[in-house]
Amino acid sequence: MRSLLIIGGSDAGISAALRAREIDSKMDITVMVADRFPNYSICGLPFYLSGEVSEWQTLAHRTANEIEKQGIRLLLEHKATGIDPEEKKVTAINKSGLTRTLKYDKLIIGTGAVSARPPLAEPDLPGVFTLRGMEDAFAIHRYMEAHQPKSVVILGTGYIGMEMADALTRRRLSVSVLARSGRVLKTVDPEMGEMIREELLQHGVRVFDLITVNAIEKQEEKLIIRNTEGIPIEGDIILLATGVRPETALAMECGIETGIQGAIRVNRAMETNINNIYAAGDCVETWHRLLRKYSYLPLGTTAHKQGWVAGENAAGGKVEFTGSLGTQVVKIFDLVVARTGLRESEAREVGFDPMTSDLEAMDHKAYYPGSTPLRIRITGDRKTHRLLGAQMIGNYRAEVSKRIDIFATAIFNEMTVESLIQLDLSYTPPLSSPWDPVQMASQAWIKELGY
Amino acid sequence: MRSLLIIGGSDAGISAALRAREIDSKMDITVMVADRFPNYSICGLPFYLSGEVSEWQTLAHRTANEIEKQGIRLLLEHKATGIDPEEKKVTAINKSGLTRTLKYDKLIIGTGAVSARPPLAEPDLPGVFTLRGMEDAFAIHRYMEAHQPKSVVILGTGYIGMEMADALTRRRLSVSVLARSGRVLKTVDPEMGEMIREELLQHGVRVFDLITVNAIEKQEEKLIIRNTEGIPIEGDIILLATGVRPETALAMECGIETGIQGAIRVNRAMETNINNIYAAGDCVETWHRLLRKYSYLPLGTTAHKQGWVAGENAAGGKVEFTGSLGTQVVKIFDLVVARTGLRESEAREVGFDPMTSDLEAMDHKAYYPGSTPLRIRITGDRKTHRLLGAQMIGNYRAEVSKRIDIFATAIFNEMTVESLIQLDLSYTPPLSSPWDPVQMASQAWIKELGY
Repeated sequence: MRSLLIIGGSDAGISAALRAREIDSKMDITVMVADRFPNYSICGLPFYLSGEVSEWQTLAHRTANEIEKQGIRLLLEHKATGIDPEEKKVTAINKSGLTRTLKYDKLIIGTGAVSARPPLAEPDLPGVFTLRGMEDAFAIHRYMEAHQPKSVVILGTGYIGMEMADALTRRRLSVSVLARSGRVLKTVDPEMGEMIREELLQHGVRVFDLITVNAIEKQEEKLIIRNTEGIPIEGDIILLATGVRPETALAMECGIETGIQGAIRVNRAMETNINNIYAAGDCVETWHRLLRKYSYLPLGTTAHKQGWVAGENAAGGKVEFTGSLGTQVVKIFDLVVARTGLRESEAREVGFDPMTSDLEAMDHKAYYPGSTPLRIRITGDRKTHRLLGAQMIGNYRAEVSKRIDIFATAIFNEMTVESLIQLDLSYTPPLSSPWDPVQMASQAWIKELGY
Repeated sequence: MRSLLIIGGSDAGISAALRAREIDSKMDITVMVADRFPNYSICGLPFYLSGEVSEWQTLAHRTANEIEKQGIRLLLEHKATGIDPEEKKVTAINKSGLTRTLKYDKLIIGTGAVSARPPLAEPDLPGVFTLRGMEDAFAIHRYMEAHQPKSVVILGTGYIGMEMADALTRRRLSVSVLARSGRVLKTVDPEMGEMIREELLQHGVRVFDLITVNAIEKQEEKLIIRNTEGIPIEGDIILLATGVRPETALAMECGIETGIQGAIRVNRAMETNINNIYAAGDCVETWHRLLRKYSYLPLGTTAHKQGWVAGENAAGGKVEFTGSLGTQVVKIFDLVVARTGLRESEAREVGFDPMTSDLEAMDHKAYYPGSTPLRIRITGDRKTHRLLGAQMIGNYRAEVSKRIDIFATAIFNEMTVESLIQLDLSYTPPLSSPWDPVQMASQAWIKELGY
């Protein structure tokens, strides 16, 4: 019986295990999990800390029991310490310090990513946190229960920073956000970032721009942010939300090649440079369908798909990862912000001749109660009229997320902007208009092009 | 200066006029409108009658003034009485009985559809209504104001029947619906129809199955439904919601060919068989992209697109209507029901080898508050794995409409079911799952196929 060993029990690892089981009902499948939390939705941690999710146990995509019922062995609290590709074996140590060795025919590495801490003096003071895994969330939760902080300073305006600004405002903390670049959610255009900034301000979140932090100091009960501007910024707790980096030490030690931002190099079958070893998820380079090259884009959606591909191939199938479009969405207070594809600068870099147009339209017919404005920016190529990217902001209830997915599906299929106008999209007055806003934005683009 | 005359000021006509103006800023454009209501959203009438829309004036997609500002002449309350294709002129009569003749270089016919009344004895009794245009809605509104009806019987379980069952329940009328076929919303599969029936029952709507109505009679203040089953059914008002037929008398008189259900034959440039005469909207046959043939599918979304195509071509452009997928959505109380593409029986008729699978999934991560179940049925071809159709039911807030649009965009692009699994769709726990339900349904389909 062939054996599949998977290192990592988060999105990519479990997705791989489940797909391998579907492809080969007999394969011996083991997932080695460093902590006690296989298949947890770490994207849900901000909602646990906000109090919207009251029981952390509900964050599991599946329980350990549900996974084991599929005939998948879970080896919890085992940390892989070495891979021997010649002998096809992995050594591991458990929480009691006992080591063991596991043989494999196929190995999938899904070690994920870790928080990238900024280079600060003394970042490990009590009350200073990052948020990546379950234990991070428990640490924050315990500290908040014990110390009842009244204020927080968040370093970073990315997805986690924004979600935590929302979450801790809900917990009635006074929230300050430091935007080192002077921009909020840099993954969307500045025009849209400013709308998010406005939403933050309206909910009482203070945003400090263009501040470079040198150090964090503890003065009595307060944590003080020492910064280049000399602005007095302090909080009872501090959250470092300045991104992640791939966890690849184990892979590198056995000769697996890495590339962009240190992520593991894989081909589109999710194979590494070493025979019988695959990798997937936040530890790997991701094929970008539009850029036609690899990039580092750690996302749960991508991790699931890459795991699926790795699992299918490790179990004897033959499938390729068809690529990311960089699709992302985040809810910040009452707003939802989403993007897919390329922004103008990204498109220009790879040789497109991009043009971007802007549209505001109501999410559904204004005569029906509850309509709210959507702001849509789309980017297309002037020469070919190919749709390259879309960004959208609107109310939580305005179907922003699945509207960006219409664009994502169109981009996947290399549609032109004008062909979107004739898509047969659904309409009823409570939910859209005869031309969906997605199509109005496309009409605005071709009009701006003078077509 | 070339002139464009458009007969009909609803969706197709105004869409054509606006697009022609964009293409040719100088063209002389006139829209002849039979009533006083150019560019009204007749899809909004149930919401006016429900009281959700308090001012009927807000139902206008655009005001007459906004249209005229584009340099488009509106000739209100003018009914076209004849077309002379040789002389390129149209005769019309206004509400005062005055006739006039208008010359054209290009003519677009957008005469729409009218309610198809069932063959009943005495359908014209006071209190018996159809609902198609503004005047129909005003008649119902006036009658309800004057007579304060307590009950209504609705013949038909299509979109209008369902929306009016909802609307008049909101107005606190007791609502009975007659389902002649024994099915509710026949445009979706019976499994889904039964979920709608349940929603109707939960809101106090009675549904009578398999009843053929012979006559409507007035007895004192009540309207009595005489039927084959001899079941006593009566109401204070009756709504005949048994479909529409194309309004084509004017077109036929001048030699324009008609086809399916009497609708005007057009090619994909929206040209009729007579030179310089185009037609668009609910009066024409519609090219179905998947069936690869024409059908009769009167919908506002389609009318807008066909008008756009006709307008562009009449103004000297060159564009083809890329086809309908039969995408539809309706809100019924708290449910939204949507479909796109083909159902199994429709697919089999045109030579596909269809298989349908069923899935229930939560609209977003169950740990985040407010998640609700979605029911998704997808139909694909066993041989090619091509996605052929999708049907979905879920809560009003569950992004059903724009999720069906992901399927519609996929079908437009002839995607296989398995390729949907790798679409880069957006995810945040409050709005979806790492595999969107659209993708879970695709996974269920390939699993059922044993792939």
